[in-house]
Amino acid sequence: MNKNSKDPIVGVIMGSKSDWEIMKNCCDTLKLLKIKFDARVISAHRTPRRLEKFISYAERNNYEVIIAAAGGAAHLAGVTASLTTIPILGVPMTSITKGIDSLLSTVQMPAGVPVATLAIGKPGAINAALFSAHILSIKYPKIKQNLKKYRSNFENKVPQRPY
Amino acid sequence: MNKNSKDPIVGVIMGSKSDWEIMKNCCDTLKLLKIKFDARVISAHRTPRRLEKFISYAERNNYEVIIAAAGGAAHLAGVTASLTTIPILGVPMTSITKGIDSLLSTVQMPAGVPVATLAIGKPGAINAALFSAHILSIKYPKIKQNLKKYRSNFENKVPQRPY
Amino acid sequence: MNKNSKDPIVGVIMGSKSDWEIMKNCCDTLKLLKIKFDARVISAHRTPRRLEKFISYAERNNYEVIIAAAGGAAHLAGVTASLTTIPILGVPMTSITKGIDSLLSTVQMPAGVPVATLAIGKPGAINAALFSAHILSIKYPKIKQNLKKYRSNFENKVPQRPY
Amino acid sequence: MNKNSKDPIVGVIMGSKSDWEIMKNCCDTLKLLKIKFDARVISAHRTPRRLEKFISYAERNNYEVIIAAAGGAAHLAGVTASLTTIPILGVPMTSITKGIDSLLSTVQMPAGVPVATLAIGKPGAINAALFSAHILSIKYPKIKQNLKKYRSNFENKVPQRPY
Amino acid sequence: MNKNSKDPIVGVIMGSKSDWEIMKNCCDTLKLLKIKFDARVISAHRTPRRLEKFISYAERNNYEVIIAAAGGAAHLAGVTASLTTIPILGVPMTSITKGIDSLLSTVQMPAGVPVATLAIGKPGAINAALFSAHILSIKYPKIKQNLKKYRSNFENKVPQRPY
Amino acid sequence: MNKNSKDPIVGVIMGSKSDWEIMKNCCDTLKLLKIKFDARVISAHRTPRRLEKFISYAERNNYEVIIAAAGGAAHLAGVTASLTTIPILGVPMTSITKGIDSLLSTVQMPAGVPVATLAIGKPGAINAALFSAHILSIKYPKIKQNLKKYRSNFENKVPQRPY
Amino acid sequence: MNKNSKDPIVGVIMGSKSDWEIMKNCCDTLKLLKIKFDARVISAHRTPRRLEKFISYAERNNYEVIIAAAGGAAHLAGVTASLTTIPILGVPMTSITKGIDSLLSTVQMPAGVPVATLAIGKPGAINAALFSAHILSIKYPKIKQNLKKYRSNFENKVPQRPY
Amino acid sequence: MNKNSKDPIVGVIMGSKSDWEIMKNCCDTLKLLKIKFDARVISAHRTPRRLEKFISYAERNNYEVIIAAAGGAAHLAGVTASLTTIPILGVPMTSITKGIDSLLSTVQMPAGVPVATLAIGKPGAINAALFSAHILSIKYPKIKQNLKKYRSNFENKVPQRPY
Repeated sequence: MNKNSKDPIVGVIMGSKSDWEIMKNCCDTLKLLKIKFDARVISAHRTPRRLEKFISYAERNNYEVIIAAAGGAAHLAGVTASLTTIPILGVPMTSITKGIDSLLSTVQMPAGVPVATLAIGKPGAINAALFSAHILSIKYPKIKQNLKKYRSNFENKVPQRPY
Repeated sequence: MNKNSKDPIVGVIMGSKSDWEIMKNCCDTLKLLKIKFDARVISAHRTPRRLEKFISYAERNNYEVIIAAAGGAAHLAGVTASLTTIPILGVPMTSITKGIDSLLSTVQMPAGVPVATLAIGKPGAINAALFSAHILSIKYPKIKQNLKKYRSNFENKVPQRPY
Repeated sequence: MNKNSKDPIVGVIMGSKSDWEIMKNCCDTLKLLKIKFDARVISAHRTPRRLEKFISYAERNNYEVIIAAAGGAAHLAGVTASLTTIPILGVPMTSITKGIDSLLSTVQMPAGVPVATLAIGKPGAINAALFSAHILSIKYPKIKQNLKKYRSNFENKVPQRPY
Repeated sequence: MNKNSKDPIVGVIMGSKSDWEIMKNCCDTLKLLKIKFDARVISAHRTPRRLEKFISYAERNNYEVIIAAAGGAAHLAGVTASLTTIPILGVPMTSITKGIDSLLSTVQMPAGVPVATLAIGKPGAINAALFSAHILSIKYPKIKQNLKKYRSNFENKVPQRPY
Repeated sequence: MNKNSKDPIVGVIMGSKSDWEIMKNCCDTLKLLKIKFDARVISAHRTPRRLEKFISYAERNNYEVIIAAAGGAAHLAGVTASLTTIPILGVPMTSITKGIDSLLSTVQMPAGVPVATLAIGKPGAINAALFSAHILSIKYPKIKQNLKKYRSNFENKVPQRPY
Repeated sequence: MNKNSKDPIVGVIMGSKSDWEIMKNCCDTLKLLKIKFDARVISAHRTPRRLEKFISYAERNNYEVIIAAAGGAAHLAGVTASLTTIPILGVPMTSITKGIDSLLSTVQMPAGVPVATLAIGKPGAINAALFSAHILSIKYPKIKQNLKKYRSNFENKVPQRPY
Repeated sequence: MNKNSKDPIVGVIMGSKSDWEIMKNCCDTLKLLKIKFDARVISAHRTPRRLEKFISYAERNNYEVIIAAAGGAAHLAGVTASLTTIPILGVPMTSITKGIDSLLSTVQMPAGVPVATLAIGKPGAINAALFSAHILSIKYPKIKQNLKKYRSNFENKVPQRPY
Repeated sequence: MNKNSKDPIVGVIMGSKSDWEIMKNCCDTLKLLKIKFDARVISAHRTPRRLEKFISYAERNNYEVIIAAAGGAAHLAGVTASLTTIPILGVPMTSITKGIDSLLSTVQMPAGVPVATLAIGKPGAINAALFSAHILSIKYPKIKQNLKKYRSNFENKVPQRPY
């Protein structure tokens, strides 16, 4: 069953309000692609019960994808993935160690519970939105159209000469 | 339009025949979840034309997901992602530098062209199959069932005591 | 209220049965120090409900310390720490990346929810047992005695000459 | 024997006065939790005798926990741990190599002499204070209360929405 | 057949216009050595067709060397190398991880398709221009003269005393 | 002036006899491409005078390319590059730190004196031979032919299916 | 034979004038300890002949220690060590990769030709001066006195309290 | 005052008996150079008092150099350096993280207390012996002779051809 186009189909959760500076690029990209989303601050470590409630809510409301952003010992994406079969996309935030800790603690999940991980920082935030569109494209033709249109602009947006 | 259940819906490509030892774990997991797949050796560097032909073929045949595994300067997933809107999952192979080069050259994609990356080596190979199932679950209820069944086994498969 | 000396006061949990080869060194050290423990396999990702039940059990039974061992994207210690005020000691297991991923995803916890982390692999497994004794020593004089005795042996155990 | 609540029970030592900018976050957190502490500058390398005197003093005055912060070849926590059975918490300071040298030289202690290590920099400074409270909670019910209160505030302090 | 000295013999391509700040050092060095070049923005990921067209053009016009600069998952040099036998020089751009990702994804090419890689960032940009001159020197005596003259200036340009 | 086809045009130097196990792959590839070479053991650190003599010899005999392989603090390629305008290709040998030290000390040359660096270990050894052929192709049509033939075999050598 | 106290006994060489900002800390420390020195800019790569001349000069004038500072592919210390038996102290300069490349290419010397390496950046610059004093102390009682005096000041220079 | 040639002038200390396999290469090289030494097992962490006694002994007996080998959180060299003005050479042992932790915790000493560090593992063990000879050469002409003889053998020991 496809969802009513007015309801969110993507959840965007982040471990701290301070991640918003990076993650608003994710939400802006979702808007550009006309994908409804629901953005929240949820800390795997400081608000574990809020995370569980959100996952129940997301399952009841048929969210199709959840994007989880966190830094340092970034457990948010992995813990979310352990509690649902909704596809989880992980975005490692930059950190004291240049995001290496965030990347490794997001991507190196054990066999059985995958987190599909995007690049560290802003490129990853934008790409998590885009990858949601890639996933949703297998079911929502409208989103596939929007995504193809987005990509067809590359040729014009990338200038021919560097100076 | 959902695909005929006899046709492959997942492409599994790897940069070298030697990746098969790891990637057969991916294919075994796809089989377990009853997901039809098409496994091939395609090198982004040594057989670039073969890659283009495969992508055309995959698009014509409505593949829903492509899993791309490569090591070292692992460009296979990224180059594939640049040529299609089919969702691309990257699996970094182990390497001389313990897979760090493979991981970084798979995951650190620029804004615009995402590769959703799984863990280095065997856990990543298995999880790429599982994440395909997570993606396909948004459209194919049968696969969602199989995935949920797979996960419900965890409780039994993980023993209570370590000795 | 001090606990009956027959009941476990330390929980030892590990993400996978395969961690036992390393973690039996932890349990052997606890035995040496005459500290009762309760060792279990609990995966943060594959058995999240089992983890919650264990924490409730540990709190009801007044466990004083929990040692949590995991590898790769090692979330076990951090997730445990988010659910209780029992002190959590993290032991990073060796891994494909030589334990660097395990170490960073155990130690780099955000402000608010600490995991006190020991060394990667076998030395960390032994030291987690010892650090439990250091903690318990502030309350249990018997354990302090055992710990002091253990350390007084160093002088004899370390030979004077290397050949 | 529990200590008089007016006397310090936690020692906070740091390798250089310049560490105070980070470590005052540790002391502020101890104050918040109403834990008396004694903060000093002690360099393992430049004032080794001062370190020995401090440890004797700490033992005579029944300090329950010592927090040791240092950067680079960070030996302070390890050397302290070699001289006492008081539990030692290590805080790796940021450094030229982004704290990687500080972390590894604090956490990678050999079997026998544990240093329980917190995160690099400010989060680690705060968490060392908190972990002291976790340890002290096994003996001091008042501190356990304060710690639980501190943590119960998380739900309110973490906003629901990022914007 | 040697080329008319008015036509470009070196192609300089970069993945993004933002790389120009670094890569103008490359072009300035080529000018200094009187080597004609053709600088373009070409993204392996966002403009793959543009890359193919450029390579055909470069081959038809007998370009002798191509310099390719990219950052992050830096595939530009490797993909170019897979499509031509013109020698490809890779310049890893600085990045979130300090250029480590760019370096590893440029240099760690599999056997069969080499990318000759220079240093990360500005020194690499200058050296790619110089290495083009080293290559061209085997065929163009004029360029060899210019290169030798460039190097003979070192003795004067490096001061004897640091203050 | 092109060289007599019986004389070596590529010098292959390596820091230690123990590098031969890797570097014979380089020499085998040069043979395959019918490029005459001259292989020697020269240590930048233990035989600095031998290195100077070799470079004079190489210049007098019009060597077109020098391949230099070394591990650890790998200075051989850099020092060679400082003494000649013959193009220098660096091959980082594997080492205790998995070749990371060899790679960084080969590739991170300062502006002015480039070393064009290939991959760590065996792939780099083979690719140094191939990149010599890419360079020589701008002057020797026969070598260009051999190189194109070598690459045209890829399609046959890479199997279609992994099993 | 001890040297006339007016002549330099320590050579301080650095790869680039830009290293002076760090290395003036080295020279200031030598002055403090009343050790005569001779500071020069010498690039292993850009002025290899100048390096050879300097080493001859240093040997003829009985320099007792040479301090060599360089960054990136830092070959200066190693090349100097290959040409003399004067003890060589290496100081890795900070760099794009935070000095990791400089450190590894200075310290990882092969068996036979040691470079004794100090810390990255300013602490290493100061410590190279101090270590010269440690070496010279075995022969020059005056320098030993100065060194002991320098170190006896630590107790006063390190404040007791951090605030 | 030069020492009687029958008495040890170099102390060789290592953190664990298991380091002997590597460090016997150090002692063999000292023998080859006819330098008397005194080898002991001393752990900075497990036998801190033994270390202090050894340093007093070494100072009373006019040891000229101390070589200190340790792995992981390698504090032995640094702690020794904090207690004496005898020059301290550090040898980082290989470890779980390939010696990176040992290297960083040996070399990254703060300004004021230098440890001159050699390469990781066996090359560092041999080079610590050699660097002792470089230091001792400024005072003992006999050792300078032996060292020069050792180095003059390089030309013969390094073969001309690799096969």
